Amino acid sequence: MKKVDVSILGCTGTVGQRLVSMLYNHPWFDITALAASERSAGKKYGEVAGEKWHLPTEIPEEVASMEVVDATPRDAGATLVISALPADVARRVEPEFAEAGCTVSSNASAFRMEEDVPLVIPEVNPDHLKLVDVQKERRGWQGCIVTDPNCTTIGLVIALKPIYDCYGLERVYVTTMQAVSGAGLPGVPSLMIIDNVIPYISEEEGKVVRETKKILGRMGDGVVVPAGFKVEASCNRVPVLDGHTESVFLVTESEVDVEEAKEVLRKFRGEPQKLKLPSAPEQPIIVREENDRPQPRLDRMAGSVPGMSVSVGRVRRGSEPNSLAFTVLSHNTIRGAAGAAILNAELMVAYKMV
Amino acid sequence: MKKVDVSILGCTGTVGQRLVSMLYNHPWFDITALAASERSAGKKYGEVAGEKWHLPTEIPEEVASMEVVDATPRDAGATLVISALPADVARRVEPEFAEAGCTVSSNASAFRMEEDVPLVIPEVNPDHLKLVDVQKERRGWQGCIVTDPNCTTIGLVIALKPIYDCYGLERVYVTTMQAVSGAGLPGVPSLMIIDNVIPYISEEEGKVVRETKKILGRMGDGVVVPAGFKVEASCNRVPVLDGHTESVFLVTESEVDVEEAKEVLRKFRGEPQKLKLPSAPEQPIIVREENDRPQPRLDRMAGSVPGMSVSVGRVRRGSEPNSLAFTVLSHNTIRGAAGAAILNAELMVAYKMV
Amino acid sequence: MKKVDVSILGCTGTVGQRLVSMLYNHPWFDITALAASERSAGKKYGEVAGEKWHLPTEIPEEVASMEVVDATPRDAGATLVISALPADVARRVEPEFAEAGCTVSSNASAFRMEEDVPLVIPEVNPDHLKLVDVQKERRGWQGCIVTDPNCTTIGLVIALKPIYDCYGLERVYVTTMQAVSGAGLPGVPSLMIIDNVIPYISEEEGKVVRETKKILGRMGDGVVVPAGFKVEASCNRVPVLDGHTESVFLVTESEVDVEEAKEVLRKFRGEPQKLKLPSAPEQPIIVREENDRPQPRLDRMAGSVPGMSVSVGRVRRGSEPNSLAFTVLSHNTIRGAAGAAILNAELMVAYKMV
Amino acid sequence: MKKVDVSILGCTGTVGQRLVSMLYNHPWFDITALAASERSAGKKYGEVAGEKWHLPTEIPEEVASMEVVDATPRDAGATLVISALPADVARRVEPEFAEAGCTVSSNASAFRMEEDVPLVIPEVNPDHLKLVDVQKERRGWQGCIVTDPNCTTIGLVIALKPIYDCYGLERVYVTTMQAVSGAGLPGVPSLMIIDNVIPYISEEEGKVVRETKKILGRMGDGVVVPAGFKVEASCNRVPVLDGHTESVFLVTESEVDVEEAKEVLRKFRGEPQKLKLPSAPEQPIIVREENDRPQPRLDRMAGSVPGMSVSVGRVRRGSEPNSLAFTVLSHNTIRGAAGAAILNAELMVAYKMV
Repeated sequence: MKKVDVSILGCTGTVGQRLVSMLYNHPWFDITALAASERSAGKKYGEVAGEKWHLPTEIPEEVASMEVVDATPRDAGATLVISALPADVARRVEPEFAEAGCTVSSNASAFRMEEDVPLVIPEVNPDHLKLVDVQKERRGWQGCIVTDPNCTTIGLVIALKPIYDCYGLERVYVTTMQAVSGAGLPGVPSLMIIDNVIPYISEEEGKVVRETKKILGRMGDGVVVPAGFKVEASCNRVPVLDGHTESVFLVTESEVDVEEAKEVLRKFRGEPQKLKLPSAPEQPIIVREENDRPQPRLDRMAGSVPGMSVSVGRVRRGSEPNSLAFTVLSHNTIRGAAGAAILNAELMVAYKMV
Repeated sequence: MKKVDVSILGCTGTVGQRLVSMLYNHPWFDITALAASERSAGKKYGEVAGEKWHLPTEIPEEVASMEVVDATPRDAGATLVISALPADVARRVEPEFAEAGCTVSSNASAFRMEEDVPLVIPEVNPDHLKLVDVQKERRGWQGCIVTDPNCTTIGLVIALKPIYDCYGLERVYVTTMQAVSGAGLPGVPSLMIIDNVIPYISEEEGKVVRETKKILGRMGDGVVVPAGFKVEASCNRVPVLDGHTESVFLVTESEVDVEEAKEVLRKFRGEPQKLKLPSAPEQPIIVREENDRPQPRLDRMAGSVPGMSVSVGRVRRGSEPNSLAFTVLSHNTIRGAAGAAILNAELMVAYKMV
Repeated sequence: MKKVDVSILGCTGTVGQRLVSMLYNHPWFDITALAASERSAGKKYGEVAGEKWHLPTEIPEEVASMEVVDATPRDAGATLVISALPADVARRVEPEFAEAGCTVSSNASAFRMEEDVPLVIPEVNPDHLKLVDVQKERRGWQGCIVTDPNCTTIGLVIALKPIYDCYGLERVYVTTMQAVSGAGLPGVPSLMIIDNVIPYISEEEGKVVRETKKILGRMGDGVVVPAGFKVEASCNRVPVLDGHTESVFLVTESEVDVEEAKEVLRKFRGEPQKLKLPSAPEQPIIVREENDRPQPRLDRMAGSVPGMSVSVGRVRRGSEPNSLAFTVLSHNTIRGAAGAAILNAELMVAYKMV
Repeated sequence: MKKVDVSILGCTGTVGQRLVSMLYNHPWFDITALAASERSAGKKYGEVAGEKWHLPTEIPEEVASMEVVDATPRDAGATLVISALPADVARRVEPEFAEAGCTVSSNASAFRMEEDVPLVIPEVNPDHLKLVDVQKERRGWQGCIVTDPNCTTIGLVIALKPIYDCYGLERVYVTTMQAVSGAGLPGVPSLMIIDNVIPYISEEEGKVVRETKKILGRMGDGVVVPAGFKVEASCNRVPVLDGHTESVFLVTESEVDVEEAKEVLRKFRGEPQKLKLPSAPEQPIIVREENDRPQPRLDRMAGSVPGMSVSVGRVRRGSEPNSLAFTVLSHNTIRGAAGAAILNAELMVAYKMV
C-alpha cells in the first residue's frame, strides 16, 4: 500500500513531539512536512525541537534533518494534516488548510464545540463524522476539520461509553489528577508543583463537561444532540509526568451489577478494532482487578499499542443500586492527544475521507 | 496556672513527632512521659526518634534526653494521656490506661466507631463528649477514651459542618489527594510514589464515610444518631509530603447561594474559639478567593496556630441550585492528627474532664 | 532608632519575594519603594506578585497594597537600594542608581567580577568593602554598587573560609545539587525535572570558580588579589524546592585533623556576629554529626535567623593526610540571595556607608 | 541452540523483578526456577511479586504462574544460577550452590572483595575470570561464584576504563546522585526523599573505592593487583526512580585532549561486543554532546539493549592539562545489577564455563 503523506502542524511542543515519534515509521503515513511558528521556519527540526525534547527516545535522524516550514497550506504539501497547534493559532490557521482542501485532524480545542465540527473518538462516536458534510457545505470548504477531545475528556468518555449504553447515566462526578505534560512546555513551573497539588486548570472543567455531552450525544439530522446527563468536574494538577488519573462517581439510570459492568468495560470494542486501524489497541479498556491500580507510572503505556488503552480499576458500587465508582487512567499525550489525532486520521483514511 | 502533666503514647512515629513538637512549651501541658514500644523503652528519646525525625525543627534538647518508657499505665505518670499508637496496639493498651483512671485523647482508629466512644472535633461536636458518661458506666472505667477522626475525615467534616447546618446535606462525593506523611514511617516507598498516584489507601474510604456520619450525627439519649446523608469517597495518595487536598461535590437539601456559603464558612466558629483554647485557630476555616488555592505546600500551615486551620477554595455551584463544589485542604498530621488530639485534650481540660 | 528607608529593585521574582518577606517588619529597614519592570509599574504589589507567590506565608497586607514603581532612581525614594534584578537589567539600571547617589546592595551577577566592585560575604571578606572608594573615584559616582555572590558560591565559601585560614587550600572539587528555586520563575519546567537530574546550569560553574577565588582573595592596595588555589565545579539541578547541597573534596596545604576541622568550622564567627547585625545567625556554620545530614528539606531553615546558617556535615578525611571532604548545605534564596543582600546592607549601615 | 536452564535466587526484589523481565524470552536462557525466602516458597510468583511489582510491564503470565521455591541447591534445578539475594543471605546461600556444582553469577556484595572471587564487568576485565580456577581449587568447589559490582561502581568503571588505558589515572573524585530503586523495596521512605537529597548511602562510598580499584586492577599470577590510583567518593540519594548520575573529576597521568578522549570513549568495545553476547549493547559508552545530558529520565534506557549502555556527557578539561571532568549515567538496576549479572552469565556460557 502506498503511504499517505501527512503534514504535522505544531510539531515542536509536547504533543508535536509525540506526533513525530508516533508517525515516524507509521505503516500508513509518511511525514511530508513539519510546520511550526515562523520563528522556527527554515531551521532543522533537530535544532528547533532538540532543546525541549522530553521523550526518552531520540529524535529519528531522518526527521531531525528535515527543515521546519511555515504553517501555511502552500508549504504543507499534503492533503492530510494533523494539527497540534495552540488553540489561538489553530483558530486562524486550520480553516486556511480546510479551505485549501486539506483534511485536518486537529487536537486543538479551537473548533471542538462548533456545531458543524465533529468531535470524535473512533471507538465511541465514529458516526459523528457525518457532520463533515454539513461543515463542507455550510463553509464552502473542499477540506474539513475533525477534532479530538481534551486529554482529560477522552479517558473519561471511553470508560463511560459502555456504561452509558448498558445502564444509562444520570450524573457523572469526576475529579482529575492530571500530569504536567498536559500543560506543555514550559508548562507548570517545578517550583509550583513539587510537593504540591494545584487544584485548578484553566478552562479544563468546562471542556470536560461540554465535550463529554457532545461526544456521547446522538447524531441527529445534521446535528449532534448532546447527551442529557449531568457532569460535574474538578480538575487538579499533580506532580506526575504523564498520565491523567480520574476518580469517577456515577449515578446510572438502571441498577448496576459490578461484575457485569467490569465485563462490559472489558469487552468493549469499536470501529478501530473492527477495521484493525494501525493505532488501535486490541482492548480499548483494560480492567484491573488489583486494589491499587491503575497507577499512572505503571499503566500509562498499557495496551497492545503503548499508551492507547485506557485502564479502569477499583470498579465498585456506591451506596445505592444505581451507582458506580471507578478510577480511570489514560496517557494524556498519547491516547489523550497525539494518538487520538492519528487514530482519527486513520479512521478517515479507512473511510476514504482523505 | 499550674501545667497539666501529659503522657504521650506512641511518641516516635510521624504523629508522635508532631505531638512532641507541639506539646513542648505548650502553655497548659507538661510532657511527663514518652512511651513507645518495648523495643525503644529505656533509651533516650533523641536516640530512638533521631534517625527517623522528619521535621525541619530539631528535637528539643530537653525532650531528646528524656528516657522512653514502656506504654503501661504504671510508667505513664500522668492522668492525661495523648495517644498516637498504631490501631492494633491502641486496641490493647488504651483500655488499660482508661481503666487505670487516665483520660486518653486518642488519635488511633481502634475505638472511633464504638458506640460509647466520642469521636470529636471540638468545633463540630463537643456535645458528643457526653458519651463519656455512658462509656464509664458501661465499662466500669475510672478514666475514658476520647477519639479524634481520621486525618482525611477531619478537614472534610470541618468544612461540611457550617454547610450542613445552613443548607442540609443529601449527598457528599469526595475525592482525596493525600500526603505521604499520612502513611507514617517507613510508609509509602519512594519507588512507588515518585511520578505516580496510588488510587487506593487501605480502609480509608470506609473510615471517611462512617466517621463523617458519626461526627455530624445528633447526640441523642446516651447514643449518637448518625447523620442521614450519603457519603461516597475515593482516596488517593499523591507525591506530597504534608497536607490532604480533597475535591468535594455536595447535593444539599436547600438551594445554595455561593457567596452566602463562603460567608458561612468564613464566619464559622466553635467552642475552641469561644474558650480560647491554646491550639484553637482564630478561624477554623479560611476561605480562599484565588482560582488555584488551596494548595498543600502553600496552605497547609495556614492559620493563627500553624496547621490548625482548614483552607477551603474554589467554592462554586454545580449544575443545579442545590449543589455546591469546593476544594478543602488540611494539614494531616497537625489538624488531622496531633493537633486534633491536643485540641480534644484542651477541651476536656476546659470542661474539667481531666 | 529611626529606620532606614530601602527600595527593592526586582521585587516580584523568587528572590524579590524573599526580600519582601524578610524586609517587612525588619528592625532597621522600612520598605519605601517596590520597583519592577515597566509592565508591572502602576499596579498593586499584591496583584503583580500574587499569582506567582511561592512562599507559604501570605504577602503582608501593607505591602500587597503598595503600588509598584518603575526601576528608576527618581521613583526609588531611598538612598539604600537592594536589587534582585535580572543580570541584564541590573547592568543597565544599577549604575543609574549608584550615579544618583544610592548605595546599591545587589544580588545580580552583572557587576560581581568588576575589579572595583566588592563581592562580599560579611563573615568572610568585609574588608573588601574598601573597593568602594576605588569604585566611587574611578566612576565618579556619589553612590556605589556592592554585590553578593551566586547562590551556589556562598555556601561553599562560608564553609571554606575557616578551613582556608587554618590549613590553606590547594584544590577544591565541588559537585552541586541545586534547588529549582535558584532558577526563578517560571524557571525549570516540571516536565524536565520530576524523576530527573539536569547535570548543567548555564554559566554556573564559571561563577563558582571565579567568585570563590575573588571572595577568598586578599585585599591589596585598591585591588583584590584572587586566591591561588584551584577550583573545579560541576553543577546539577535536582528536584528540590529550596536549598543547595554541595559535595566538596579539598586538598589542603597542611595536614588536617578532622575533629579539629569540625571545631574550626563550628567556632567560626565574623563581623555580623560581632556587630550583632539583625540578620546575622549566631552560628554562621552549623556542624552536623549525623551520618546523613545536612539535608535540604530538614536543614535549609537552620539557624537562629532561619535560612542564614550554613550546615556542614559528613566531615571526613580523604585518602591522604592533607585532604578533607564534606557536604555543605545553604538556603539558596535566603543565605544565597535575599538574606545575603540584606546582610550586606546591614553591614554597610553599621559601617555608616549608607 | 538449546537454551541453558537458569535459576534466579532472590526473584522478588527490585533487581529480581528486572531479572525476571530480562530473562523471560531471553535467546539463550530458560528460567527453570524462581527462588526466594522461605516465606514465599510454595506460592505462585505472581502472588508473591505482584504487590510490589514496580515495572511498567506486566509480569509475564507464564512466570506469574510458576511456583516460587526455597533457595537451596536441591530445588534450584539448574547449573547456572543468577543471584540477586541480599548480602547476608547470599553469604550463607551462594556457597551452598557453588559447592553443589553451580556456576553462580551474583549481584550480591557478599563475596565481591574476596581475593579468589572475580568481580567482573565483561567489557572491562573479562580476564579476571581466571580467578575461578583459584577459587575452585582453594575452596574445593565444583562450581563457583562470580560477582558483578555495585550499581554505582559499574557506570563509573566502564567510563574510566578507556581513559585509564589511554591516559593513566592518578586520582578520581566522584560524587553520585543515586536513584531510589537502588535501595530496593520498601527502600527509601517517600517522606524522607520528596523535595530532598540524602547525602549518605550506607557503606556505598567504600564499595565504590575498593571495587573500582579491584576491577581496574591487573590480573597477576592467580591474584588481582588493585589499581594504584586514588578514589574519593561521595554518595547521595536524590528523588529519581532509576538511573545513577555521577559527576566525575579526574587527574590523569598524561595530558588529555578532550576531543580525543571523547573519541576514545565512543570507540570503546569489549568482549561482549566481539562475542555478540545477547545483552551486549553495540556501544558500551554513548557520548553526548549536548550541554545538559546525560539525564536519568531521558538516558537511562539508552543503547541497543535498553539500559545496558552507559551515557557520558559534559566531557571537559579541568584547570590543568592532565585533568578531565565528565558526567556519567547508567541504569542502576539494568546495567548496574540485573543486566550485569546476566551479561556475566552470558560471557561464561560463551567461554564454556557453564
